[in-house]
Amino acid sequence: MDDREIQLRRYKSILSKYLDDQSEQTLYKGQQFSRKMIEQKISPEEAVSLHVSAMESLYPDMPQEFKNSYAFLLEMMIGYGFAYREHQSLRSRQQ
Amino acid sequence: MDDREIQLRRYKSILSKYLDDQSEQTLYKGQQFSRKMIEQKISPEEAVSLHVSAMESLYPDMPQEFKNSYAFLLEMMIGYGFAYREHQSLRSRQQ
Repeated sequence: MDDREIQLRRYKSILSKYLDDQSEQTLYKGQQFSRKMIEQKISPEEAVSLHVSAMESLYPDMPQEFKNSYAFLLEMMIGYGFAYREHQSLRSRQQ
Repeated sequence: MDDREIQLRRYKSILSKYLDDQSEQTLYKGQQFSRKMIEQKISPEEAVSLHVSAMESLYPDMPQEFKNSYAFLLEMMIGYGFAYREHQSLRSRQQ
């Protein structure tokens, strides 16, 4: 199982729990997960992609409009992936 | 009408067109819109928030699970908003 698959499983598990209980506690676990992703230099584009994969896996029969809206969101986030990689490059030049 | 409202209207109009036609041309308009957001230093968190507001406006009766999933996604993106603002601060120090 590669890193992305492990992350997807963990994210999906937290998201699924949140959709069940909508508790502050589970939301906090989501924030902690997000902090770790940032530490691991995962771009915002990849983070959104993880969310979309988790939703598609939790709701395989979701309405087509929602599937299409995720495709649009991911396309929009590509530019943010580039901007993020530029940020990493600036940081490493400063260190 | 403030800036965010104008942006929301434009984003919603492109997204809505894409959900109707799923054309490459409309997807390209979405990419151009995203490039402009990056130029205007709109954080990935705000970009995702724009998408969520547009979806909630287009589908006010969407299933509760989807509404909750958007709340979770937005919470996860907050950290990326902070990382982005740090990026802007690094850039301005380099200029």
